Amino acid sequence: MNWLDEVKWDRDGLLPVVAQEQGTGDVLMVAWMNRDSLAATVERGQAVYWSRSRQRLWHKGEESGHFQKVHAMRLDCDADVLLLSVTQHGHDPSIACHTGRHSCFYRQLENGVWQTVEPVLKDPESIYR
Amino acid sequence: MNWLDEVKWDRDGLLPVVAQEQGTGDVLMVAWMNRDSLAATVERGQAVYWSRSRQRLWHKGEESGHFQKVHAMRLDCDADVLLLSVTQHGHDPSIACHTGRHSCFYRQLENGVWQTVEPVLKDPESIYR
Repeated sequence: MNWLDEVKWDRDGLLPVVAQEQGTGDVLMVAWMNRDSLAATVERGQAVYWSRSRQRLWHKGEESGHFQKVHAMRLDCDADVLLLSVTQHGHDPSIACHTGRHSCFYRQLENGVWQTVEPVLKDPESIYR
Repeated sequence: MNWLDEVKWDRDGLLPVVAQEQGTGDVLMVAWMNRDSLAATVERGQAVYWSRSRQRLWHKGEESGHFQKVHAMRLDCDADVLLLSVTQHGHDPSIACHTGRHSCFYRQLENGVWQTVEPVLKDPESIYR
């Protein structure tokens, strides 16, 4: 698969992946993929990441039901970062973060403090049964 | 500076940083910061990255004039990725990529091929004099 060979994997065989919501343009999360997870993402049409903490393929939504349909995939100029255009499924409004929030980027720097600026939309305890 | 201590730097002392254009929501680029560059970014109000290839602070725009004004800064749930909301200065329409394109994410996967889908807005030779 030639297109997979054009990706410049880091020394761990990974690359960072930005998931951006198609409808809103919101950046939902950044996770990592290895070669197998990128191939699986294209095959399924849903985001399959590499979990660095669990050291295994992580089909986003496999536990939460909050899977990500992938509409488009872009590679950057250095071929070492990927941008996904996704629809975040499983809840309305959409939840990408394991904390039950819309986006993982929910803390904003304000006067030298990381302030939480996004609400919890669903209790994580009821997401991960 | 307490807020800097909350960031989880990787084993190289870096974290990936996503720059998103405030007006359009476009993801312009992903680069890296170390502690000094993040502190400098906040001090200047402009993006200062860490260049991994040159192993030095990289005040984005220092050569091209295409600097990035930073409006807001968000940290993700794992505290290991940063999202900047920026205005990309120096050219209209805005150019973030060293290839003279709007965004670094200009190659899209189409039928197993990375297709260039964004035009060069300005010849890089005339950007980097």
